[in-house]
Amino acid sequence: MTAKLKFGILGAGRIGCVHADTLAFRVPEAEIAAVADIHREAAQALADRCGIGRVSASTTEIFADPGIDAVLICTSTDTHAELIAQAARAGKHIFCEKPVALSLKKIDASLEAVKHAGVQLQVGFNRRFDSNFVRVRQAVAGGEIGNPYLIHIVSRDPAPPPISYLGPSGGLFLDMMIHDFDMARFLLGDEVEEVYAAGGVLVDPAIGEAGDLDTAVVTLHFSSGAIGTIDNSRKATFGYDQRVEILGSKGKIASENRYPNQVVVSGEKSVYTDLPLNFFMQRYIEAFAAELQAFVEAIREGKPVPVTGEDSRISAVMALAAGKSFREHRPVRLKEISA
Amino acid sequence: MTAKLKFGILGAGRIGCVHADTLAFRVPEAEIAAVADIHREAAQALADRCGIGRVSASTTEIFADPGIDAVLICTSTDTHAELIAQAARAGKHIFCEKPVALSLKKIDASLEAVKHAGVQLQVGFNRRFDSNFVRVRQAVAGGEIGNPYLIHIVSRDPAPPPISYLGPSGGLFLDMMIHDFDMARFLLGDEVEEVYAAGGVLVDPAIGEAGDLDTAVVTLHFSSGAIGTIDNSRKATFGYDQRVEILGSKGKIASENRYPNQVVVSGEKSVYTDLPLNFFMQRYIEAFAAELQAFVEAIREGKPVPVTGEDSRISAVMALAAGKSFREHRPVRLKEISA
Amino acid sequence: MTAKLKFGILGAGRIGCVHADTLAFRVPEAEIAAVADIHREAAQALADRCGIGRVSASTTEIFADPGIDAVLICTSTDTHAELIAQAARAGKHIFCEKPVALSLKKIDASLEAVKHAGVQLQVGFNRRFDSNFVRVRQAVAGGEIGNPYLIHIVSRDPAPPPISYLGPSGGLFLDMMIHDFDMARFLLGDEVEEVYAAGGVLVDPAIGEAGDLDTAVVTLHFSSGAIGTIDNSRKATFGYDQRVEILGSKGKIASENRYPNQVVVSGEKSVYTDLPLNFFMQRYIEAFAAELQAFVEAIREGKPVPVTGEDSRISAVMALAAGKSFREHRPVRLKEISA
Amino acid sequence: MTAKLKFGILGAGRIGCVHADTLAFRVPEAEIAAVADIHREAAQALADRCGIGRVSASTTEIFADPGIDAVLICTSTDTHAELIAQAARAGKHIFCEKPVALSLKKIDASLEAVKHAGVQLQVGFNRRFDSNFVRVRQAVAGGEIGNPYLIHIVSRDPAPPPISYLGPSGGLFLDMMIHDFDMARFLLGDEVEEVYAAGGVLVDPAIGEAGDLDTAVVTLHFSSGAIGTIDNSRKATFGYDQRVEILGSKGKIASENRYPNQVVVSGEKSVYTDLPLNFFMQRYIEAFAAELQAFVEAIREGKPVPVTGEDSRISAVMALAAGKSFREHRPVRLKEISA
Repeated sequence: MTAKLKFGILGAGRIGCVHADTLAFRVPEAEIAAVADIHREAAQALADRCGIGRVSASTTEIFADPGIDAVLICTSTDTHAELIAQAARAGKHIFCEKPVALSLKKIDASLEAVKHAGVQLQVGFNRRFDSNFVRVRQAVAGGEIGNPYLIHIVSRDPAPPPISYLGPSGGLFLDMMIHDFDMARFLLGDEVEEVYAAGGVLVDPAIGEAGDLDTAVVTLHFSSGAIGTIDNSRKATFGYDQRVEILGSKGKIASENRYPNQVVVSGEKSVYTDLPLNFFMQRYIEAFAAELQAFVEAIREGKPVPVTGEDSRISAVMALAAGKSFREHRPVRLKEISA
Repeated sequence: MTAKLKFGILGAGRIGCVHADTLAFRVPEAEIAAVADIHREAAQALADRCGIGRVSASTTEIFADPGIDAVLICTSTDTHAELIAQAARAGKHIFCEKPVALSLKKIDASLEAVKHAGVQLQVGFNRRFDSNFVRVRQAVAGGEIGNPYLIHIVSRDPAPPPISYLGPSGGLFLDMMIHDFDMARFLLGDEVEEVYAAGGVLVDPAIGEAGDLDTAVVTLHFSSGAIGTIDNSRKATFGYDQRVEILGSKGKIASENRYPNQVVVSGEKSVYTDLPLNFFMQRYIEAFAAELQAFVEAIREGKPVPVTGEDSRISAVMALAAGKSFREHRPVRLKEISA
Repeated sequence: MTAKLKFGILGAGRIGCVHADTLAFRVPEAEIAAVADIHREAAQALADRCGIGRVSASTTEIFADPGIDAVLICTSTDTHAELIAQAARAGKHIFCEKPVALSLKKIDASLEAVKHAGVQLQVGFNRRFDSNFVRVRQAVAGGEIGNPYLIHIVSRDPAPPPISYLGPSGGLFLDMMIHDFDMARFLLGDEVEEVYAAGGVLVDPAIGEAGDLDTAVVTLHFSSGAIGTIDNSRKATFGYDQRVEILGSKGKIASENRYPNQVVVSGEKSVYTDLPLNFFMQRYIEAFAAELQAFVEAIREGKPVPVTGEDSRISAVMALAAGKSFREHRPVRLKEISA
Repeated sequence: MTAKLKFGILGAGRIGCVHADTLAFRVPEAEIAAVADIHREAAQALADRCGIGRVSASTTEIFADPGIDAVLICTSTDTHAELIAQAARAGKHIFCEKPVALSLKKIDASLEAVKHAGVQLQVGFNRRFDSNFVRVRQAVAGGEIGNPYLIHIVSRDPAPPPISYLGPSGGLFLDMMIHDFDMARFLLGDEVEEVYAAGGVLVDPAIGEAGDLDTAVVTLHFSSGAIGTIDNSRKATFGYDQRVEILGSKGKIASENRYPNQVVVSGEKSVYTDLPLNFFMQRYIEAFAAELQAFVEAIREGKPVPVTGEDSRISAVMALAAGKSFREHRPVRLKEISA
């Protein structure tokens, strides 16, 4: 394929704008043909900013446009599954923000539609494209640290989201830890068979009243025998805390946070640095760009996308198993989870 | 008390020698009056090295000596409980290497003897005296990181011990992780109510054949609601891996390993440093000295020792609960464990 | 000014392309109206890449275009001074790559033309816009480390340029250390009165045969009494080595290199990381963008540009004084240098 | 030699006590036979502390004692040269604190006496025994960083000494930077041919009124062509700042300060650690012990001591050259300095 890949963007919210910037200014092989959003002004503003020729009245109009090769689904989570199915039926390739849906039933319906249509679906697990995690994966895959024994993933937000966000999000396991479930599989190149979830409400009682957790540790039992832990908190006052450490038979690999600068001050009371990058928009800005570049390249070259719908489904199963483990206070095998 | 505290040392093996060096050369307020070991040559060599006046034929002789104020028990684990009881009955203060015993019944008998005799017993949880962990504890106790949410303790040996060591040791939970159980309580100043243990044999199948684990992760549920994880491996090729990290409502505190020097080489292929200190004799040499200094000071000033027999008992309960959790594949409450 | 600032780009080489990318894709307030290069294909390629409407046959055509507000001079060094003068006479604001010229006489003629025309000239000392050096400057200006006593600037290239590059470059002091002379003034907010230069040919004898140095250390005597050292080498095998450290009455501030990731591997022989970013195109990519954004903002808002022709002149005086100091083997006062 | 090496200690001040502790408690092959100090109570206190059998009324008594093999000279600097000469004539091996004397004439007389007597003299350049600098030296000597191009030595005290200390000390170059002159030679294994000194009074005007400097940077020209800088300040509020960095043809080696612990706190405003070790008694405590162990071993085994009187003389020549360079404001060759 030598022509540019023509995109329709569905949703002009925060992440939609990030992706639009990438397509408009960083991926010469892509072109944004149209954007749709239920808030028309948001769509128009994005169109102005990124030089997008057309603001569509509806997603239907975009699906119907034969000039559009692929869609970028950046709408609210509850609409993802249905939009994927529609896009698939319209023969469009799909890049969809995570999660595909909060229930396996919906996810399965979407994946079935994608499979039937023969299009490709990439899900937005952006961390796979972060240069730190890419380097960690490279070390594991290349045998640099030998056979993995233990993996510890830390993933903490600087502050909890608004309480109103929590319910629709699916809760900590499906909304937040789902990224870490994907990382665990990606980094080890191994599948998890069983999980045990410990959790609590330590940050803010209102989160508990809303039926969610704000702190959780999940133990992972991998097929290889390796053991993992994922450590999540909704509050790390010093900023976004995103690290991973793997111990293997030949050594250890550990990634640190990213900082806005590499400056150290030795003062009268302490030796200090500025805080790490505050949240995902700072920390993963390069990863967001890299995941879209990978999608465009895969579609144009007719190769499989690097993060599939099936990857997304497995992470959802892990999140559902973790929730069940927490509620039933026992280890839960992934096989126990079905649609 | 202005006179020197007079010690009898029981056991002239590796750790006995370390403690003798401390008493002889670093604690002016202490004096070693006698040493006993079933290997008389070992006792004699230690006496020569440290200027100890008398090599006793037996522990009985030491217990019977009215000039001896305190004993240092550095014999093999299976003799600890009985020697503690004898020393207590002889009215000696006691410093005993961990663990007191592998069964609660034995531990309880020892503690009862100590209590009845009105002497003091300090147990060798040396890590409480390491300058890193002291600093971490200080931060938690002083509110520097607010209320603790999560604690992660890493404790990995450079290489597994000989297989013959494993059986008598009581296994990974009682022999190795017991230090970390103590650290968890010490660092948070909180008690654990329940544990969940995951483990495996990943390093060496011979360890499994000997009925032990070489890799384990235990989840801790604290009274305060805080959640902890302890990560143990018998093999970290790069050296002794001893770290801790605590997330609290105001921030995070993390301790790193110690290195033989602070030198960084930027070479043609990587930027590198030498490996961390290899094992406990290098890493904790200062902590071993500090624990004995604290014991001598407490006894001389008639104050409580900083690590009691009760502390030792609780760690043993945690280890037994972890073993039960692993065998029964479920979370186990500490209350389930009794003598 | 609400209209976009319209640029003509002179020179479509490596740095011209970097700046064009910034203007095209990162600065919405700017627009590239035309590009000229003696290699027409290079100009055309850049125009295609960045959506530039016009490829001009000559710089004259660009100066003559009343629709162009500002020019970006990215041609070879020997043409800078004359192009600045022409641009000034044409009433264009100017962003010129450093150095303006290798002789004070030429520099002064350029600055005179700029002054007479009443346009603004910004010189490409990009390091002032690097987030590390910005943070260091902020600390000094804000009193965070008190009164500066000592500054040490390290600036080393990964490998020497081709020998053919050296002659026209003006040599190490005018080509390479000129950046560090500017940093010294910028970071301390102070002027240098005297320099002493030590230097040698240690990397490659061919550099010496070409009449240049490949290693140099210059001592700076500041008006305030502070003392500085600049340490330059043409060869740092591990990559671009760009750091600064300042000691003041209240403490010390030091900046480290940038790395492609924050990953540390603890292997069997060493603890290591990947090498730092290799050269200026990686290390200073963000700084190149920031300097142009600052230029566009200053011109549009009628404010002074942040790096002036006078700044450029002072750095050149320092470089000439350093060369004289090296040749005459004695400290040289800046006052000794005249056009 | 199998008997213990018997020492007489001259001077029971701070450093005398440090060395006595080392000999008494860390070097089984040494024995302290006697101590003398003009303050008899100080000598007595040290004798009590370290179990020294005899407190001598005078140094003469110690020189006259045929049972004493070696003396440790820890008296005030102005007495060193004469005591060395007396000790040599008495046939004692000598360990003397730096500097031997403030004038070359005196130094030469001492060295002549030592040579004539055929005894050995080791001078207290303790930093050669610090594990960081040992590692740096090892890298250079082993070719790990190739041929050295540049060396930068930082050496800063936490706070200036009392003004009354300065005059008798010989001033910054002879008192403080003399350690760094020795390090420069030791680390590169190369000799300096010329120096250029820049200096000032930035910390405290009273230091200037006393005729001394508190801040200085000296450029070193080595025989090999390598260039060095030494950066001294009497005030680093954050603690003792003792680092070195060497760039070579294959890479760079840099040593960092030492810290009391390896703990990092990520707080609400910064990421911080405790300050580095405050001064030489903390930072070099192990190096002080190692230098005496090396002396005892050399003498007992009849091998040359690792830091000779000649080493001390060369450092003094460098300090005198630096002083002359500063006063005459020009580079000074070491050949210009004579007794």
